[in-house]
Amino acid sequence: MALRSTRAGVRQTEVETRVVAARESRHFMRNSRPIPSSPWPTTPPSLRRASPKRRAAAGNAEDLAKDNYGDGVPAAGKLDGERVCLRDVGEAHVGKTVRLRAWIQNSRMQGAKMAFVELREERNWAIQGVVAASQEGKPVSRQMVKWIGGLNLESYVLVEGKIQKPLEPVKSVRVSDYELHITKCYVIAAGPEVLGMGLAVANKPVTNFDDEEAGQDVPVEEARKGVEAVTLDNLPSASMATHLSNPAMHKRAPVQQAIADVRVATRKLFAEYLDSKGFNQFEPPCLIGAASEGGSNVFAMPYFDKSAYLAQSPQFYKQIEIAGGRKRVYCIGPVFRAENSNTPRHMTEFTGLDLEMEIEESYHEVLEMLEGVLLFIFRGLVERCSDQIALIRTVYPSEEFLLPEPGKEVRLTFAEGQALLRAEGPEAFRNVSDDEDMSTPQEKALGALIRKKYGTDFYVLDKFPEGARPFYAIEDPENTKVTNAFDFFMRGQEILSGGQRIHDAKVLEARIRKKGIDPASPGIKEYVDVFRSVGVPPHGGGGIGLDRVVALYLNLPSVHLTSYYPRTPKRLLP
Amino acid sequence: MALRSTRAGVRQTEVETRVVAARESRHFMRNSRPIPSSPWPTTPPSLRRASPKRRAAAGNAEDLAKDNYGDGVPAAGKLDGERVCLRDVGEAHVGKTVRLRAWIQNSRMQGAKMAFVELREERNWAIQGVVAASQEGKPVSRQMVKWIGGLNLESYVLVEGKIQKPLEPVKSVRVSDYELHITKCYVIAAGPEVLGMGLAVANKPVTNFDDEEAGQDVPVEEARKGVEAVTLDNLPSASMATHLSNPAMHKRAPVQQAIADVRVATRKLFAEYLDSKGFNQFEPPCLIGAASEGGSNVFAMPYFDKSAYLAQSPQFYKQIEIAGGRKRVYCIGPVFRAENSNTPRHMTEFTGLDLEMEIEESYHEVLEMLEGVLLFIFRGLVERCSDQIALIRTVYPSEEFLLPEPGKEVRLTFAEGQALLRAEGPEAFRNVSDDEDMSTPQEKALGALIRKKYGTDFYVLDKFPEGARPFYAIEDPENTKVTNAFDFFMRGQEILSGGQRIHDAKVLEARIRKKGIDPASPGIKEYVDVFRSVGVPPHGGGGIGLDRVVALYLNLPSVHLTSYYPRTPKRLLP
Repeated sequence: MALRSTRAGVRQTEVETRVVAARESRHFMRNSRPIPSSPWPTTPPSLRRASPKRRAAAGNAEDLAKDNYGDGVPAAGKLDGERVCLRDVGEAHVGKTVRLRAWIQNSRMQGAKMAFVELREERNWAIQGVVAASQEGKPVSRQMVKWIGGLNLESYVLVEGKIQKPLEPVKSVRVSDYELHITKCYVIAAGPEVLGMGLAVANKPVTNFDDEEAGQDVPVEEARKGVEAVTLDNLPSASMATHLSNPAMHKRAPVQQAIADVRVATRKLFAEYLDSKGFNQFEPPCLIGAASEGGSNVFAMPYFDKSAYLAQSPQFYKQIEIAGGRKRVYCIGPVFRAENSNTPRHMTEFTGLDLEMEIEESYHEVLEMLEGVLLFIFRGLVERCSDQIALIRTVYPSEEFLLPEPGKEVRLTFAEGQALLRAEGPEAFRNVSDDEDMSTPQEKALGALIRKKYGTDFYVLDKFPEGARPFYAIEDPENTKVTNAFDFFMRGQEILSGGQRIHDAKVLEARIRKKGIDPASPGIKEYVDVFRSVGVPPHGGGGIGLDRVVALYLNLPSVHLTSYYPRTPKRLLP
Repeated sequence: MALRSTRAGVRQTEVETRVVAARESRHFMRNSRPIPSSPWPTTPPSLRRASPKRRAAAGNAEDLAKDNYGDGVPAAGKLDGERVCLRDVGEAHVGKTVRLRAWIQNSRMQGAKMAFVELREERNWAIQGVVAASQEGKPVSRQMVKWIGGLNLESYVLVEGKIQKPLEPVKSVRVSDYELHITKCYVIAAGPEVLGMGLAVANKPVTNFDDEEAGQDVPVEEARKGVEAVTLDNLPSASMATHLSNPAMHKRAPVQQAIADVRVATRKLFAEYLDSKGFNQFEPPCLIGAASEGGSNVFAMPYFDKSAYLAQSPQFYKQIEIAGGRKRVYCIGPVFRAENSNTPRHMTEFTGLDLEMEIEESYHEVLEMLEGVLLFIFRGLVERCSDQIALIRTVYPSEEFLLPEPGKEVRLTFAEGQALLRAEGPEAFRNVSDDEDMSTPQEKALGALIRKKYGTDFYVLDKFPEGARPFYAIEDPENTKVTNAFDFFMRGQEILSGGQRIHDAKVLEARIRKKGIDPASPGIKEYVDVFRSVGVPPHGGGGIGLDRVVALYLNLPSVHLTSYYPRTPKRLLP
């Protein structure tokens, strides 16, 4: 009852809310520094907050609540109540004392006798905590309120309190139907006095992907000038470099946790579908003995008395698995490209999802399997990650990713695609040829035409011209100008190359020569030898880049946002 | 009915079986060469078989069955019957015509009018095929029988035939209760005239792990001398180098497919358990900017205008994920060690299974989680892979892997382990110290004592001495001579190091200095900075090497047998 009247007493009026919002924006500036001069800045004295201990000590009155808060965790048994996680808090908890562990996401004083804190767990689950000094100073004293209201942001705390229903939902947090009336609060791990990047900034869209190790958005002096004018809405966003130099805050941003969830779900859906279709997972090596797939863009390194290279794809190894008697295989793992491209679309290390399978009648079995697994992923993401996708859209807006109706998958031949471009595409593409690979602008233009015509963002182009495919692609026996190979597209961008491979050593060797490669060259010889050594069934497969598929699905401005630790020519840290 | 009498006619007597076995052993020598002079040998003329076409053409009589066999797959619709997989063949199929695709695992003539072939699918599913010339030469002619009986081993064929029950089970194949009376047979992909390594050899235990790129067991001339004397039982085994130079045959060996199944199951069980406990999978990078974990044994490589290194463990990245607001994380991926050790226990690339989690009350939460996931794996393997484990034991014998009864898990402190060694161990270990790490012989001796005393091959040693643990290990607050860190053991060998990590930047920096490392050195600085940048909850974790755990569980003589493509100082191919 005492608590109930307290709660009623602290309910914010609309005017108060506006005042608080204004304070909050200053608070964000004090506690967040989107514009560090170095990745781990020291704090200019003017931006420092008085430490909690100094402030607590400032009051002279005896502190009757002094055991109910402080730095460090008390001995076991000092806290009452059920240990809860915020996602589980419900009607059954109302009026009950609970314990939880959370990050201080926001804190503010309301006069001298009350403070509000936002307490956040993983995945954006947060609740409003209220702490109000009680008449007799027990269990909550004025000193305790002041101490809690002044806690450093992103401190990790152990809290005891009573779950109550607020009169109005608390819109700023995910657990909006309840609030926590704090009776005890201990700091498990203190946040810094000033954050390198505040949570609100970390959760804003990144627009600058210019990748420098120690990124600077604006000189720190310049940024300090405008401090008082900054509000939540006009808070500047930070560059990708600042995000990556503040990895913990980058990862604490709800949008990044949501992207990570979508990424993991994509991986799992891929594996689940293929497991259900009788595929065997396997692990190709990263270290290889020869730069067998072209040789350019490959990382080379000293390896004892010889050289090693980092695999650019698991292609050869998937095929060795098939030669080794597996009917269907897939792998999920890192692949590497030594490409000196500093763009939001490039990374030097990324995750490949690859499959290879025996063909019984037609290579369209492979095409259908790949189409099947991608549709399973896209439909599965809507089911499993709808909350995350909705959250991501609040930061990175995107149109719904359109899928074909079941049975109405869009498959055009490359020639049909080119014909569509010539007939209905932009002026510049009226003369595209059936024998040459498409450029990225052509692909995007065709994507737009197909979205309009068929209502899908996902489609297949089959029968790519011979010249556009690597040496292991099989030619169409009925028309050797094209191959039994295809590309898959998302939102007009290529996400997958696949098709049937040559399984006969003699045919393979002939095509290797035709492509101007020496079949006796290192890596190639051992590859062809596998097909000489046993009878290998006809087979085919394909692979997608996980980073790219997630970025395109969510319409993110860069693959760097989907990667846990993006590697670019300029960045290998953290 | 005709087929039934045919089958009765071909049933082998015991005497015939012995004759066939003798033929079979010659056949193995003709068709398998465990002792190649090069990885992909050319065939000495004396060992060559007449090509099927030449033999088929040898008969002058008109071949009434000529459309029922041959090289290449006929147009669709030429084969009758349900498409079956051998694992699904059952009573319902008896007397019915079916189609299947399989490898020729063995073939032999029985007189001039009959031939036997063993037809193998994935995972050792094989059936005996019988083909007998019919009176009128339709559907099976003498020429067809001869052609099938002479097919190159490891050819991939498309077969039509009728499922029948043999009078006695066919012991040499897994589908022993049925046989296939072949009516059509086409070669999809021909095996070579001589295999680099035969299946029987590939399925024998590897004993020589001396890793040379082009391994030779015995000079080829010497091996040829004894050809006639070789039988299935005294068939020489091939070295690991020969296996790896014949990757397709190495992988076709049932024992290797079974090991691969156990490996994949281990991976999946690890992920399943942790998914059910609220863990988030994530992907640490392979490319890192600093050789932060010691610097020795790390692969370095040129990376544009700087250097990159290959990660030796995901340790720092797991901790950044925890700092980044995840309560529990795990990862499965490659790690690298540039160690010039050419032993059956070493590889330069292997797969790590790692986890890290928040600690609420005690680091024993981590210990219990790791114990839980490993017991889940061990119990799950017995459930899911009992066939595979039984098969592997026929090649690599092993005693049952003993587990503790639920609730009776064995956890000793390091000091208790040392005391046990001093009290009951071998003479040499009567003076072992509590302050120094154990040697491998000490570990093995202790493992034997624990197996005898507690009846388990799986146990934990806790509270390792401070000097034996890396800088990120937290000291026991009650006794700083030891750490809150532990090792897990299987069959007396260490498989996991884990424990609580330091989560406070100041404590971390102090311990880094104590260990003689400069906290400002590359990689270390960025690592400590993460703990300065936010409040990080107490946490701990551990990691296992997948290759090592599988090898120890199955008691294999080398981790090279568990890896898909083992990488050693001398081997990067295929």
